[in-house]
Amino acid sequence: MSVIEDLRAALGPGAVLTGADAAPFSHDWTGAYAWQPVCVARPSSTAEVSAVMKIATETRTPVVPVGGNTGLAGGTAGDGSIMLSLDRMTAIREIRPEARLAVVEAGVILSQLHEAADAHDLVFPLTFGAKGSARVGGFLSTNAGGSNVLRYGNTRDLVLGIEAVLADGRVMNLMSALHKDNSGLNLKHLLIGAEGTLGVITGAVLKLVPKPRAYATAMVGVASLDDALALLNRLQEATGGAVEACEYMSQPYLDEVARRFPELRQPFAEPQPVSVMIELGATAPRDATPGPDGQVPIVGLLEDILSGMMAAGQVLDAVVAQTEAQRREIWRRRELAGEVTVSRPPLVNNDVALALDKVAPFLSRMETRLARIDPQAQPMVVSHLGDGNVHYVVWPSSGDPVLIDTIMEAVEDEVLALGGSFSAEHGIGLTKKPSMARRKDPVALDAMRAIKAALDPLGILNPGKVLPETAG
Amino acid sequence: MSVIEDLRAALGPGAVLTGADAAPFSHDWTGAYAWQPVCVARPSSTAEVSAVMKIATETRTPVVPVGGNTGLAGGTAGDGSIMLSLDRMTAIREIRPEARLAVVEAGVILSQLHEAADAHDLVFPLTFGAKGSARVGGFLSTNAGGSNVLRYGNTRDLVLGIEAVLADGRVMNLMSALHKDNSGLNLKHLLIGAEGTLGVITGAVLKLVPKPRAYATAMVGVASLDDALALLNRLQEATGGAVEACEYMSQPYLDEVARRFPELRQPFAEPQPVSVMIELGATAPRDATPGPDGQVPIVGLLEDILSGMMAAGQVLDAVVAQTEAQRREIWRRRELAGEVTVSRPPLVNNDVALALDKVAPFLSRMETRLARIDPQAQPMVVSHLGDGNVHYVVWPSSGDPVLIDTIMEAVEDEVLALGGSFSAEHGIGLTKKPSMARRKDPVALDAMRAIKAALDPLGILNPGKVLPETAG
Repeated sequence: MSVIEDLRAALGPGAVLTGADAAPFSHDWTGAYAWQPVCVARPSSTAEVSAVMKIATETRTPVVPVGGNTGLAGGTAGDGSIMLSLDRMTAIREIRPEARLAVVEAGVILSQLHEAADAHDLVFPLTFGAKGSARVGGFLSTNAGGSNVLRYGNTRDLVLGIEAVLADGRVMNLMSALHKDNSGLNLKHLLIGAEGTLGVITGAVLKLVPKPRAYATAMVGVASLDDALALLNRLQEATGGAVEACEYMSQPYLDEVARRFPELRQPFAEPQPVSVMIELGATAPRDATPGPDGQVPIVGLLEDILSGMMAAGQVLDAVVAQTEAQRREIWRRRELAGEVTVSRPPLVNNDVALALDKVAPFLSRMETRLARIDPQAQPMVVSHLGDGNVHYVVWPSSGDPVLIDTIMEAVEDEVLALGGSFSAEHGIGLTKKPSMARRKDPVALDAMRAIKAALDPLGILNPGKVLPETAG
Repeated sequence: MSVIEDLRAALGPGAVLTGADAAPFSHDWTGAYAWQPVCVARPSSTAEVSAVMKIATETRTPVVPVGGNTGLAGGTAGDGSIMLSLDRMTAIREIRPEARLAVVEAGVILSQLHEAADAHDLVFPLTFGAKGSARVGGFLSTNAGGSNVLRYGNTRDLVLGIEAVLADGRVMNLMSALHKDNSGLNLKHLLIGAEGTLGVITGAVLKLVPKPRAYATAMVGVASLDDALALLNRLQEATGGAVEACEYMSQPYLDEVARRFPELRQPFAEPQPVSVMIELGATAPRDATPGPDGQVPIVGLLEDILSGMMAAGQVLDAVVAQTEAQRREIWRRRELAGEVTVSRPPLVNNDVALALDKVAPFLSRMETRLARIDPQAQPMVVSHLGDGNVHYVVWPSSGDPVLIDTIMEAVEDEVLALGGSFSAEHGIGLTKKPSMARRKDPVALDAMRAIKAALDPLGILNPGKVLPETAG
């Protein structure tokens, strides 16, 4: 039998897509990659994922696990592969409010999880633009970041346990619901962020946190990134670390949003030198319960600090959301970043991490350097400033691969000179493999290759991703 | 040349100890293990650690990395091995207060790090009884827990980057100082908690957190563990998650402390059914700045809540520390647990994790079960209750290994029936290898063995620890 016939026998004929039905799984949403898969397998259970992997092992067929297919680094490109889609495994098996955890299948969509947690006055504190499509298995496999990392950490910090199917089809049960569980090598953290190269994540136990009782959200205009950091530090100090988000949006980004989404106005009457979005979350009742004047204390605190800093010239303008609708508008302006970024190919999409005080020097150095490499190039910056995570997008003057790689290398040079990382939250996939080869510690690369070979000796799990081939 | 001569040539003659000089590295502090090492090698730099590993590789000599030798699971037993002590690598290379991080060598002692951070009004929020001896490389290699995990996480949550020397002597540089750094498989988390079986951790970048501006610390007597949990939840809710520690000390433990350390009185005038230590930490100025009456708001909040719960019969007695000396006394009573535990061999030392609401059922089931197995056995419980982490110590009626293993198996049975883990924060070492063999997912065990073989093909790094031998 052929692989497709084997898979149909194991999963049922409707669960294996080919031809036109497989088209949605034959390209990534950024438009950068297109490929020809063998078929799309849509298992409905861990046992069926296991069956797929056993067939793949027997037939030596590559397997590319795919969640919402919203990745930004080409991690789901699957020429000649079985696309293993988790989109039928969408059960939220359990929410245990007292233990503050959710037990989920890997195909659950992030926004579905948000809603389920909200029904218990809890939050799964991971959020990013693609939340309406991204699935658990995908955001665990890339260790996604987003806009609340400042307060709650990256995806891996929100995972208590996982279940995964290994290359040979065996199921590994690490579904701990415990906050302390030291029993041997930490395979959970190894699978998280492995982009499907070591196993297929099929389920997870995720942490939930208490829903803030009130938010205070604002767009703030300041003179410089240094002033933005001073504002962040001031707010962290005054609130004891209640800042949930601190996001920088450059003027070219705000202009592009306003142009493409006219219903979202510019945040300020006049463009500001530096525009940042700030959100505080109040979990203690005394910070969230309105006073006799109807004022929510955490909102009052934010307004007082902003007024004081404005009087001192440290803040130029500020708009504090007065309603939930205004708050949603501020968030939506930020969450469109992915969509805006990919709207104008060709592009150089960077996802770098720096110490917080190195973001401004990085941007200033790149301004000089980019002008020398490609005077017509247009940079557009969006940044999780509170994490030092910068999406340094460049629309170059042409799609010439050499030009694109030259820009990428320049970014890497400046980032590494400033002690940063070429990859913060989007993963490596295909896009960042040249950066891995050039910049990652070679001993670490060798260790990764040894682990990959040990757990996937046939090399069938998402082959060609993450790990650059050895030289020679 | 012999191994010892090779090492002397590489490190200098004074850096290699043998005979009586090696005696402190020939047994563990619990008294449970003694062994005969080849020698003790005391490298002073990463390059010298690398030299040791190269000699070990060439001569196929096992190497046991050792920090403060304060482990509780026999992880440093090293018959026929080079004991690789990190005790000369004690440099705190850098503290960067703005970035809230410390760059340290692996031999730095925990309390030395506490003092260095304190000088910058920062805290390295990991603490446990052995803090005056335990070293960075050791507590990273065991992913130690302790009394502040509730608020700040386990050791691994406090580590930004590591440097490690692999079995063949190559140095792996993962010294990231970044909060987001996704560049390939997460080797950092794999090395943390690996108990020296995959590499020797030689340096680390550690997170620091703002020092709370004020603490509110109390010993509280309640009627039951359920009431203790209700108190914890009430305090978390009122403070928005400011509980730093919630520690249960059983009466047998308090009696033993009072007997051996008479200067530490019993916490209450009358023994309480359940005694817990509670500490709140205030980071926001408005919670920490004394009011016109001199009252610190966070202390006032704790006293108000305790009074209210006492009036409602939910709290039986409470003593709130009024001075730093009183606070230190409360902490010291808890921190003596390790010392008290090992003072009366033989013992069965358990370190289990449970969901918070399963601690009481576990203890009650064990009471029945232990009485059947060994009517003369004396259990003594100390627990990081806020993490569901229970140190269920048993002083059995004899040191018969079969009896000890029968008690251990009974504990495992009850823990697993309640969805818990047989290992929370002390690691596996030698002591918990039978539990690993019996209880850990077999697919996970195989994956761990494959990784071990891939990174240490000669099996020279802390051999025989953590991973049970395959059956047959």
